[in-house]
Amino acid sequence: MAGSAPAPFTADDYRARMERAARAAADAGLAGLLVAPGPDLVWLTGYAPTAATERLTLLVIAPGRDPVLVVPTLEAPDAEKAAGAPALTLRDWTDGKDPYAATAALLDGSGRFGISDNAWALHLLALQRALPGTAYASLTEALPMLRAVKDAAELELLAAAGAAADAAFEEIRNVSFQGRRESDVAADLAGLLRRFGHSQVDFTIVASGPNGANPHHEVGDRVIQDGDMIVLDFGGLKDGYGSDTSRTVHVGAPTEEERRVHDLVREAQEAGFAAVRPGVACQEVDRAARAVIADAGYGEYFIHRTGHGIGVTTHEPPYMIEGEEQPLVPGMCFSVEPGVYLPGRFGVRIEDIVTVTEDGGRRLNDTTREMVMVE
Amino acid sequence: MAGSAPAPFTADDYRARMERAARAAADAGLAGLLVAPGPDLVWLTGYAPTAATERLTLLVIAPGRDPVLVVPTLEAPDAEKAAGAPALTLRDWTDGKDPYAATAALLDGSGRFGISDNAWALHLLALQRALPGTAYASLTEALPMLRAVKDAAELELLAAAGAAADAAFEEIRNVSFQGRRESDVAADLAGLLRRFGHSQVDFTIVASGPNGANPHHEVGDRVIQDGDMIVLDFGGLKDGYGSDTSRTVHVGAPTEEERRVHDLVREAQEAGFAAVRPGVACQEVDRAARAVIADAGYGEYFIHRTGHGIGVTTHEPPYMIEGEEQPLVPGMCFSVEPGVYLPGRFGVRIEDIVTVTEDGGRRLNDTTREMVMVE
Repeated sequence: MAGSAPAPFTADDYRARMERAARAAADAGLAGLLVAPGPDLVWLTGYAPTAATERLTLLVIAPGRDPVLVVPTLEAPDAEKAAGAPALTLRDWTDGKDPYAATAALLDGSGRFGISDNAWALHLLALQRALPGTAYASLTEALPMLRAVKDAAELELLAAAGAAADAAFEEIRNVSFQGRRESDVAADLAGLLRRFGHSQVDFTIVASGPNGANPHHEVGDRVIQDGDMIVLDFGGLKDGYGSDTSRTVHVGAPTEEERRVHDLVREAQEAGFAAVRPGVACQEVDRAARAVIADAGYGEYFIHRTGHGIGVTTHEPPYMIEGEEQPLVPGMCFSVEPGVYLPGRFGVRIEDIVTVTEDGGRRLNDTTREMVMVE
Repeated sequence: MAGSAPAPFTADDYRARMERAARAAADAGLAGLLVAPGPDLVWLTGYAPTAATERLTLLVIAPGRDPVLVVPTLEAPDAEKAAGAPALTLRDWTDGKDPYAATAALLDGSGRFGISDNAWALHLLALQRALPGTAYASLTEALPMLRAVKDAAELELLAAAGAAADAAFEEIRNVSFQGRRESDVAADLAGLLRRFGHSQVDFTIVASGPNGANPHHEVGDRVIQDGDMIVLDFGGLKDGYGSDTSRTVHVGAPTEEERRVHDLVREAQEAGFAAVRPGVACQEVDRAARAVIADAGYGEYFIHRTGHGIGVTTHEPPYMIEGEEQPLVPGMCFSVEPGVYLPGRFGVRIEDIVTVTEDGGRRLNDTTREMVMVE
């Protein structure tokens, strides 16, 4: 979160976002939004403190009044430099003073507020105590759509991040895999993401052979061997917006089963993508991809949801998961990434970022989804 | 937080810590502790997930029962590898299932619980909803001493981290400052910390000339000039435990005022250190250092608290601040770091990590506190 380079938006852009957020809050019956350091704050103000700490930093957005950023005095000079600073009032507080009393004075004491998912429990508990009549909902729950629908400028940045990740894949497929450690290939991938413009690398998963069967295996010292299936899953932030793509490559000739499972996952990914259109519930994307895998008898080996949103982070709502009835809206961006994981043997995952258009979906990743042979 | 290398403790060490935590919880009238990814979890279990996310990971410690780690199925293989894993029960949950119901089943529905300061509001709100009869306090508030008193092995690791930071200072004082950017010197500092064994660099502040007057200025492109006063403040983690030290150096001959302010801060730091002994309230350390600066007429330019604890993080309780009545206990470790900041001109800060002994304090940093001239 911290250190993510804010995208090149102006104070007017941030003002418009804060106004949109205030309207959404009012529409949802909320008395306001309480925004902690992290992606919500970056998106609303362009401000990314070095770290979230026990010192309260909180943006207060309430319908009908100007946004206020409560910030420790020590950090006020940094906050003043944020691109969105001209669109809000800074209220700084000094060590030893009570920032919760100062914040409470800004709030309706009997209101219901949306608060950033990642706000610290320490701060939430102090606010609940300062204003016992208030109620809270997480921002994801209260306003799941707040950052989910991207505008044209954001889509352009996401497309550029996706293109950069694709460029990294086109290079990595030509490096040596066999005889090198997963961590060596991961370092290559990180270097390529940076070379193609990423300011932050969030993950460079290289999961070879049996490691591929653990979807969260990041990288290790395993030396890649002839015959390995290798899941590559990598992304980060470029100009403040995220990339995230997966391809599964193979060293040497694949077995018939490896080919069959790869084809199956590709077909599932295609089915998930084909389900994307406005008005369809998120869970339908998951169901479409999952049905392909289940029908082939591999359902028990697809052990995660089909996708997650992406924007100023590489991992955010909306989630493509059973039970998520949120309808898709043009401008939403998320991953479609089914996988099959055969314990102790190998895994396959294929992932594109997809954006919802007026009449379907558009992929923001466009490298081949066929199995790529590497050396 | 994430990625911090766990220190080389055994399952028995972690079991003892969890038992100590359970007893402390019972003594404080708590029905249990809810521990989120971050320093509390590292300290109690050695487990540091790659990132804290919207997927619930939570250690449940309740007096009289075995600790349970609720963890996403995807991350269970990583959690199983933690050094403390043999001392707890893993309970994994799969995407689409409700982890809060599973957690609630482990909890006394009318109990009061301590929860990690940095637990996400998202998770706290879901628990409050799943168990409306429960109450919560932040761990810092409920059990401020939980990690504050270090045992002998921890003190050894903190002393080693301090010695490594000191070694970095002894090298950095000999590099060229004049004509180079702050960011160049900061990169040198980061390299030195790593060379002397740090696995993680948390900050390398190089604040030259007027930048020194902003205590949170990290580093910039300013080119260091003859006559500059320069605040250096750097630290990170070595073998899982923190370092944090500040020295203020000077290029060329200092003015009489620069010398006087530096002497003043040195005297304040000495006074803060001299106040350290068991039974003294934290705020007395702050008062002792602050009185020296205030008596000299610079009180308004000492704009932060005097210190903070250090352990598996570089920034934690106890805080040396007015209003903190917590008495010092042998084994506590914290910074003593007064400063004077003259807006637009220069700043001075001198900082050592200090541990409380049976009869006073012991510094874990031991480079000269005289003003060092650099070139």
